[in-house]
This record gives sequence, C-alpha cells and structure tokens, in this order.
Amino acid sequence: MTDVRACLFDVFGTVVDWRSSVSRDLAAWAKQKGIGGIDWLEFAVEWRKLYQPSMEEVRSGRREFTILDVLHRESLDKLIARYAIKGLSESDVQHMNRAWHRLEPWPDVVAGLTRLKKKLVIAPCSNGNIALMVNLAKRAGLPWDCILGAETARAYKPTPDAYRNSCRQLGLSTNEVMMVAAHNNDLRAAKAQGMKTAFVARPKEHGPGQTTDLTPDSSCVDLAPKDFVDLAAKLGG
Amino acid sequence: MTDVRACLFDVFGTVVDWRSSVSRDLAAWAKQKGIGGIDWLEFAVEWRKLYQPSMEEVRSGRREFTILDVLHRESLDKLIARYAIKGLSESDVQHMNRAWHRLEPWPDVVAGLTRLKKKLVIAPCSNGNIALMVNLAKRAGLPWDCILGAETARAYKPTPDAYRNSCRQLGLSTNEVMMVAAHNNDLRAAKAQGMKTAFVARPKEHGPGQTTDLTPDSSCVDLAPKDFVDLAAKLGG
Repeated sequence: MTDVRACLFDVFGTVVDWRSSVSRDLAAWAKQKGIGGIDWLEFAVEWRKLYQPSMEEVRSGRREFTILDVLHRESLDKLIARYAIKGLSESDVQHMNRAWHRLEPWPDVVAGLTRLKKKLVIAPCSNGNIALMVNLAKRAGLPWDCILGAETARAYKPTPDAYRNSCRQLGLSTNEVMMVAAHNNDLRAAKAQGMKTAFVARPKEHGPGQTTDLTPDSSCVDLAPKDFVDLAAKLGG
Repeated sequence: MTDVRACLFDVFGTVVDWRSSVSRDLAAWAKQKGIGGIDWLEFAVEWRKLYQPSMEEVRSGRREFTILDVLHRESLDKLIARYAIKGLSESDVQHMNRAWHRLEPWPDVVAGLTRLKKKLVIAPCSNGNIALMVNLAKRAGLPWDCILGAETARAYKPTPDAYRNSCRQLGLSTNEVMMVAAHNNDLRAAKAQGMKTAFVARPKEHGPGQTTDLTPDSSCVDLAPKDFVDLAAKLGG
C-alpha cells in the first residue's frame, strides 16, 4: 500500500450517519413548526429508498446527468405527498431537502481524516453534489483537499466513470488511489477499475439489526481497518 | 457585502507568485542537473506568454476542453525546442511541467484565507486544473473548501460559463459570490455575470516596472482591500 497517493471516500454511511442525522434534523424542525404524527426515522429511511431508483434514471441513460440535490428534492416532494404533510412553504421544503447538507460524521472520522491528510490527498467520491459536500464538510469539519464525486465525474457510482474520472482529475492512475467505503458493492466497482480498496464497517448505518455489509468481501477488499484512525495508521500516517 | 456567502479566487498572480516561483524552481533544478546558460526568469515569462493563446484554442471552440497541465506541457515542449535544451528524459520534462504545482503564495494569503474560511466558503476559480490546484494548495497550505475553476466548469475564464458554473456548483446565485483577483479583466467578466468583485493589487506579479493592473477599475470593482487579510476584515471575518 506504499504507492497509495490519495484516498477517496464514500460519504453517505461511510463518513456520515445519514439515518440518525436526517431523522433528528427533521424531527427537531417539525417540533418547532408544530408538525406532529410523523415517524421521522421511517421518513428518512423511505427517503433513502428512493435514492438508488432516482440515480438509476441517470445511470441507465434515460435521463441526463442531474445533481443529487435535485433528485433528493423530487423524492422529498413524493414523500410529502405520501405522508400528506400540509402547509409547507417553498422555503420549508428547501430547508428539509438540505437536511442532507447537515449530516453528522461518525466519531472517528475527523481525527482519521486529519491524520490521513498529512500524508495523502483526501477527497470524497460521493454521489452527493459539490454544494452538498461543501456544506456538509464545512459544518462537520471534514478537511478534504478537494471535492470529487458524481458532479465532477458526471457519473453516478458504481458507473466506472465515477471512479476513473475522479482518479484522472487528481492526475493519478487508479492503482495509486484507494477507495474507502462501508459498502462492498462500491469497493467491488472501484477494484474493477484498478483502485486499491479499504472497507470500514459501519454496522449501525441502517440501525439495529443491520444484516448487510457487516464484513468485508475479501474478493475485492485490500484493507479492513476498524475505523478511519486505524486506516491512517495502516497507511503509515 | 453582507449577502456574500462565498469568495472565489483567481490563483496565478493573485494567490501565488508564479513568476518568481517557476523561475526559482527551474533554476534550482537546472543547477542540480548541470544545465547552464539559460535565463530562467525569461524562460518563465516566455512560458506564461503561451498561456493565453493555448487557452484561446479552447475558448474559441477550435479545440475541445483540455486541462491546463496538457496546455502547459505543449507550451513547454515548444520552449525546450526553442531554447535547444538537450538530453531531457520524459520524467525531467514532467518535473519541469509540474513547476506550476509548486508555486509559492504571496505572504498575506494563508492568514487571509484562514480568516475568510471561518465565515465563508472559499475556493479557487482558476484556469488551472484540479490536480494542479490540489498539489499547489497542499504544498502551500491553502485551506480551500473545494476546488472549482476551469476543469469543473469545463470553460476557461473569462468565458461566462467559468463563473456561472462555479457559482451554480456551490448552489449559490452569482450575486452571493465574490470574485477576488489581481486582474481587472477577470473582475470585469465576473461582474458581467452578476458577481461581487474584489481587486487585490499584486504590483510585483510581472516583476519591477509592472505597468498593468496597478489600480482597480472602478467600473467593475466593488472592494479594493490591500491584501487578503484586509479582505477578511472588510467582509467581517
């Protein structure tokens, strides 16, 4: 792993705890607005369920590249109708949509990234758009060297271009870059493009009783550090 | 200026002293290699003279978007032939080309950006490509929130899309973003897209006897701080 020059990170699930963050954020806002009777944890999970189908429209070529803020908003509009939430202004809905800009990192993330940054280039390679990643990083104190991912690559993971374009934009070969994720399918796709891979388990991403991505798939995973601080140690940082 | 949410920065000349940096870098390298008889200050200036014509091929539509590292390399190859420098390996020429990744900031830059970052989103909006900007920032300690500019906008300044796409990628209107540059023509183009503008004079960019861009053009400049620290103070940071 001594030739690794940069680490690219999946964000939703790997860097941040989207499920707790979105639900807590919306619950606090709803309380302030006097909106009752909604299970916001369920709402967050339902919102996330619309994520893959919305990107699949782009990946399949049926729709031109569209940033995630727009896809999130379309999904949110569907959920607001389904849950029959009434009386929201445009600015209310915009505030709700930006819950994805206010996600909290897992406890090891800032310390690990800070150590890694001393030795390597670190950047997100997320399906989130640039503005979302910038706002999230600024609030959470994530010390990225730059923001890469779907919007800069013009392709949603796990499309090969999402990984290849991100490495190329850093001026590096894919084998000089490590993809870090809590999801084996992300790492399988990165490995297929020649990237190095690290699996960091996030067994609470989907709440108690999670059954997926509890362990690394050894067919596509090079390193399995226990968290980001351990990753920094394993990469000599 | 209270509605400014982000500052975008020109880099070559405004953030870094390209003329001294490139010439010093190449002179030190040439000495080590035993290459004599070349005025590296003149070489740096000649290299820079090929910069605008190379981008004009892209701006005019005669050539598809091509990153600056490639344009710099083509210009360098011409200069190596013109100066009849012999015996260089491919890795030597790559090292020379990456002199643009090793530029030194003006003395006020890191302190000013560090203060600005506490209040605003800060990013380069340079014609340099992502890898160049990342390597330069990492070496010089520039605390950007993200890297924007020609490669992410797929347009070279002063093309309108270079400014418009950069603001859009931050999720902001052009009037919420301030362009900061030492060049009035850059600010004129930014202002034409509705951006706020700040002129920071860099009277030594072109060495002693500089005659251009010594003072702000009041027709397109909103603020004229004396340096980046003063800019941070003027923006309330």
